[in-house]
Amino acid sequence: MTEGGGTRVVRTRAELREALASARRPVGLVPTMGWLHDGHRALMRRARSENGTTVATIFVNPRQFNLATDFTRYPRNEARDVAVCEAEGIDLVWAPPVEEVYPPGFDTTVSVGAIARPLEGAARPGHFDGVATVVSILFSLVGADRAYFGQKDAQQVMVIRQMARDLAIGTQVIACPTVREPDGLALSSRNVHLGPDQRVAAAALHRALMAARSAWEDGERSADRLRDIMWETLTAEPLAAPEYVSVADGVTLRELDRVEGPALLSLAVRFGETRLIDNEPLGTGDGTTPRA
Amino acid sequence: MTEGGGTRVVRTRAELREALASARRPVGLVPTMGWLHDGHRALMRRARSENGTTVATIFVNPRQFNLATDFTRYPRNEARDVAVCEAEGIDLVWAPPVEEVYPPGFDTTVSVGAIARPLEGAARPGHFDGVATVVSILFSLVGADRAYFGQKDAQQVMVIRQMARDLAIGTQVIACPTVREPDGLALSSRNVHLGPDQRVAAAALHRALMAARSAWEDGERSADRLRDIMWETLTAEPLAAPEYVSVADGVTLRELDRVEGPALLSLAVRFGETRLIDNEPLGTGDGTTPRA
Repeated sequence: MTEGGGTRVVRTRAELREALASARRPVGLVPTMGWLHDGHRALMRRARSENGTTVATIFVNPRQFNLATDFTRYPRNEARDVAVCEAEGIDLVWAPPVEEVYPPGFDTTVSVGAIARPLEGAARPGHFDGVATVVSILFSLVGADRAYFGQKDAQQVMVIRQMARDLAIGTQVIACPTVREPDGLALSSRNVHLGPDQRVAAAALHRALMAARSAWEDGERSADRLRDIMWETLTAEPLAAPEYVSVADGVTLRELDRVEGPALLSLAVRFGETRLIDNEPLGTGDGTTPRA
Repeated sequence: MTEGGGTRVVRTRAELREALASARRPVGLVPTMGWLHDGHRALMRRARSENGTTVATIFVNPRQFNLATDFTRYPRNEARDVAVCEAEGIDLVWAPPVEEVYPPGFDTTVSVGAIARPLEGAARPGHFDGVATVVSILFSLVGADRAYFGQKDAQQVMVIRQMARDLAIGTQVIACPTVREPDGLALSSRNVHLGPDQRVAAAALHRALMAARSAWEDGERSADRLRDIMWETLTAEPLAAPEYVSVADGVTLRELDRVEGPALLSLAVRFGETRLIDNEPLGTGDGTTPRA
């Protein structure tokens, strides 16, 4: 037995249901697209500490990629991912082929409205429909009591929380703090695509967020000024091509004129073919879900 | 205690969940918009015969009405409906206010694709989004093992079945035979709006379907000829204003040229302000779900 042995890997909806029929409750779910890193490990650890059974899914969801090239390019290594799940003591891994998630003739879409429209929703048409649809399938299949997501994808957490609440899915959506490299770069499966110079330059995302946070802490309330600070920090980095910077309401994600309440700083930046995102909540702790 | 006493009526999501926490399995669900008639009673009887606990919902769903006037005009009488549920031995009735189904800020839509587009989907834009959304909420909330719908709304059954399968909702969708008046008129809550002359004329729907079935049984395979037979039967009735007649594939609901396999005859007809629908499956039994 490997460390944390007892991890079972299943492929079909039927196997997953059967494996969960007698699972010790509560059940904690960590949905992933694989290429697992320390951010995923942190989700798994929290899930394990709070639940009787932990389930991880490894599925690169074609429906949430608005670009086919991005989907094919997304990194994959299932053997390594399963080893990570074993090391973290995950009880059950669901690593399905596409047709087990989307059976032949699949033709249903779950769409979230206003909260899914700006930022990543605007930059990646159809992305959040793909996310909401696959996550509603995962939640229904697993019947999880809790599911764990990284705060790095802040808007994704908000979209999923809205979907689960609206559709009365009894899975609590828990946001966990972003895990970062020593230079501040948020862990992401996409970081593997960065060349050495791009990797150094990518620290500019967090630097930009911290510069704006620092100005806010010093009393700056003009959202345009905070956007300028982020934009200037990013454009000072020659390898970075910023796509957007945002200072949005922390609840509605509407762009702000002035930061008077909870807000979310966020940005998207390209380094060659690789697109990275990051965010920093203002005035609401760190936007993650505190332990009870 | 009234006959079949022990029916409990609850209003909130939380009360429903609490009432179901210790329910005897399996749980059978009969979703209704109230104004219950013998068609609903037949669904309830079948649900009761197959399940340990039976739940009925009474909710006139604003999201499935494409016309506001149709929503406000839809007949309502909760006291009578609850009495019907009691008489049928329903264990639990959920009769929620709108904000318990759609809490403030509700902003999620469940959409089914191709099967939801023709016929009622084309005639009533947004109707099936409203149906799929509310039913996915009901299925998640109740966690029913089986749910019962009338075959009168054949396309609705197909849309709901597709949604439940795609989203991995573990509720089996069971279609029950249409219940009819002696002259063939399918029971519908909307029949209450018919004036005496319209009520007599409304038998033309079933007459048209039976005329086309009879031609099919005699070997007619031209879908246009079957459509003509339905259209002519309907237009022979001065009070009837036919909206569509359809001869569609029984699985895809695509309009047919020739009827060589399972098919669905269906039609929609107006009598003044009142719009009625009906259908007749060909070559697939009656389209309902046989008992195991």
